Amino acid sequence: MTYCLAIKVDDGLVFASDTRTSAGVDDVRTYNKLHVTEVGNERVFVILSAGNLATTQWILNAVRRDMDAADAPISLRTVKHMYDAAEYLGTLSVRAQKESTYGQYSNVDFRTTLILGGQILGEDPSLYLVYPEGNCISVSPETPYLQIGESKYGKPILDRIIRPHISLEDATRCALVSLDSTMKSNLTVGPPLDVAILPRNSLKITHRLRLDLDTPYYAALKKAWGENLERIFRDELPKFDWEAQQQTML
Amino acid sequence: MTYCLAIKVDDGLVFASDTRTSAGVDDVRTYNKLHVTEVGNERVFVILSAGNLATTQWILNAVRRDMDAADAPISLRTVKHMYDAAEYLGTLSVRAQKESTYGQYSNVDFRTTLILGGQILGEDPSLYLVYPEGNCISVSPETPYLQIGESKYGKPILDRIIRPHISLEDATRCALVSLDSTMKSNLTVGPPLDVAILPRNSLKITHRLRLDLDTPYYAALKKAWGENLERIFRDELPKFDWEAQQQTML
Repeated sequence: MTYCLAIKVDDGLVFASDTRTSAGVDDVRTYNKLHVTEVGNERVFVILSAGNLATTQWILNAVRRDMDAADAPISLRTVKHMYDAAEYLGTLSVRAQKESTYGQYSNVDFRTTLILGGQILGEDPSLYLVYPEGNCISVSPETPYLQIGESKYGKPILDRIIRPHISLEDATRCALVSLDSTMKSNLTVGPPLDVAILPRNSLKITHRLRLDLDTPYYAALKKAWGENLERIFRDELPKFDWEAQQQTML
Repeated sequence: MTYCLAIKVDDGLVFASDTRTSAGVDDVRTYNKLHVTEVGNERVFVILSAGNLATTQWILNAVRRDMDAADAPISLRTVKHMYDAAEYLGTLSVRAQKESTYGQYSNVDFRTTLILGGQILGEDPSLYLVYPEGNCISVSPETPYLQIGESKYGKPILDRIIRPHISLEDATRCALVSLDSTMKSNLTVGPPLDVAILPRNSLKITHRLRLDLDTPYYAALKKAWGENLERIFRDELPKFDWEAQQQTML
């Protein structure tokens, strides 16, 4: 399994992913699931992937091939709008799955789900979820984040914290806590973690991080988060009425 | 769906559940999923249930019938150990599913998963998960809680906070936060919430709560939790190095 997420706030976009892939518990590997494509100073795309690794690599190579070919009918170099880019990825995804399925009868699941985010000069930054079926949806102000893969463990903290007005850095910290919670509860999601930050109108990734469990920043974040949660439970939550009575009787 | 959990700490047991049942989004009802059976001052059992409601009610009625019958070969009144009680529930569960399946060809899922907890005089308090297949597992010191139903959303906070030494009240608050996080992220889990607290060697439930969204204690807990999480993100987590630089340059 995998866990990737992308967040849209007023100041821009944040992308984060784990790096664990597995074809069974005895075939666990580390793969980058966060792919950045910058085109000049006028457009930048980030692709996150969850699902069949071969399908994902087929798509990424087709994307590269189309960008290199002068006569490609469409590519990330030439799409007019982010929505067109999301549709294009969906088309590639469906084609990759069809080619894998053709002429074989195994039960392998060839599907891949993608998140596409980025900005094209003249447009707002935007985020799309590209389904294995090739269609796509964007984020909304009420749902300013997208998740793919093992998404349930890390969802509550996003629902509580992510709002359009928070800073890119707070959104990044929240993404890391969401990933950390997921890794604590599910072995199929694992370190190191990849992060990319795309400020609005910068048209390039300004911060790209790879964080392992012992990377000083990540270790400090985990420690601070854990200690603060424990402190909330110890000191900050309301007592039951019988606890107050117990104290009065002392 | 459903979300129920039970926690074992040194001081005793905590049980909590939502009350939403659904047979499709247009058939949503409220049912108690937390069932207490006290026998004299010498044994107490709590059963939590997730799954087919008819199967659950079949089991609970069989439990009651066996307790009322003087000649029942086994009942919660006569089992020697908590493990025997868990096995007994498993046997009933399998029988209930078999009777429902017999002679019909629908695709209904008749399975129910149970948590059984409690204490029999002379034994430690204990918690068991009873699978639909009739077998069961107990908690361990390293895994001092059990969940059934929609368990992923509320797991990270349990993994971070629940330790054998924490108080029954802190464990209860953690169970409520776990349920609250789940309700925020998944519509099939809903209020009101049921809670039962069984202190070690009390051999009776000392606190039984039903909390709705506007119950003052629950409203205060939700508010304090939400505000404290926001405060952690605002003030308590480590800054990225470029944030520090930004400040220095002011």
